[in-house]
Amino acid sequence: MLTFYFAPGSCALASLIALGESGLAYEHRRLNLANGDQRQPDYLAINPKGRVPALVTDRGVLTENIAIMAYIAQIVPAAKLAPLDDPFEFAQMQSFNSYIVSTVHVNHSHKGRGYRWTDDAAAIETMKAKVPQTMTESFALIEDKMLKGPWVMGEQYTVADGYLFTMEKWLPGDGVDIKQFPKVSAHYERMLERPTVQKALAVEQG
Amino acid sequence: MLTFYFAPGSCALASLIALGESGLAYEHRRLNLANGDQRQPDYLAINPKGRVPALVTDRGVLTENIAIMAYIAQIVPAAKLAPLDDPFEFAQMQSFNSYIVSTVHVNHSHKGRGYRWTDDAAAIETMKAKVPQTMTESFALIEDKMLKGPWVMGEQYTVADGYLFTMEKWLPGDGVDIKQFPKVSAHYERMLERPTVQKALAVEQG
Repeated sequence: MLTFYFAPGSCALASLIALGESGLAYEHRRLNLANGDQRQPDYLAINPKGRVPALVTDRGVLTENIAIMAYIAQIVPAAKLAPLDDPFEFAQMQSFNSYIVSTVHVNHSHKGRGYRWTDDAAAIETMKAKVPQTMTESFALIEDKMLKGPWVMGEQYTVADGYLFTMEKWLPGDGVDIKQFPKVSAHYERMLERPTVQKALAVEQG
Repeated sequence: MLTFYFAPGSCALASLIALGESGLAYEHRRLNLANGDQRQPDYLAINPKGRVPALVTDRGVLTENIAIMAYIAQIVPAAKLAPLDDPFEFAQMQSFNSYIVSTVHVNHSHKGRGYRWTDDAAAIETMKAKVPQTMTESFALIEDKMLKGPWVMGEQYTVADGYLFTMEKWLPGDGVDIKQFPKVSAHYERMLERPTVQKALAVEQG
């Protein structure tokens, strides 16, 4: 049995959607980040990074969306959640996911997690102020150069779509109007129509 | 033919080492980041992100170390650069690489690239000041919880080792004494002994 640890509103939604798309059976555990659940000893024993997501398997624990999502795609090939038979296309999908984790999510984190990189309260405020600009720049690149359409990788839906959706969902809170990006907007609406996405959002909210 | 774009001192060293380990034939192009080569139109046509690394293949361009390194491992399975036959172990390797790109490299970037996240000169100085602390915390986690030894994944050398080596190489400049981490120090020394690493360092410096 798989057990999935996540928190509402976090990036773990991406792996939650992938789990739903895969059809794998799993139990879920909801952490409250505001209460500091992720820093409690019982959770640190699962994921010493004190972050979500974490997927507990019979073999051990997996962390990081990029790893969890590719794992889900590989162990359920019939769900066709990644271009598993083509290393080049698989790498393109991974490249997209890496851009999300290394750049888009990091830009977003400077709104609410600035304390990770400075101890200065005034500096944290200046970081918050730039988030609308950095998130706009990232999504302009996604709109113009990355999102093939209708899905991230083109005609085939992949785990990258759940990851992009998770970032799209953050845009209003980051002060960015998604409507300025027609392809991204259409992708977001298309995702909302998927039953697995609707179910993941329901699981997330509990 | 493959063409690899990199810059000395950048994270592209990780993919450069992977290319060397694979035995694949490739040409290399050296960018000078201080001169802004990465923002010139000819390079932006290859990688619109204006970053390194980029690997030009017959099928198109791949960016991001995580994607490039797994691609190299997959197209040259005989080099055994990743646990390709075990999705769980492959995911563990990817999880390690994702921690590097999303957390360790990002911590490091707050020393020299703070302008990405704030426009305030004083704020940038406060970011620089915290880099020794954040890099120390990341490497303490790698030392205690992640690096199985002798290689990242245990007995099997993988592309993750070249990525960790690249971060280890940055530690002196980040104000962190690698000697406080015995397993990490031994890993760094072990990497320096590999002919492919020596060759990658020579290619990097030109």
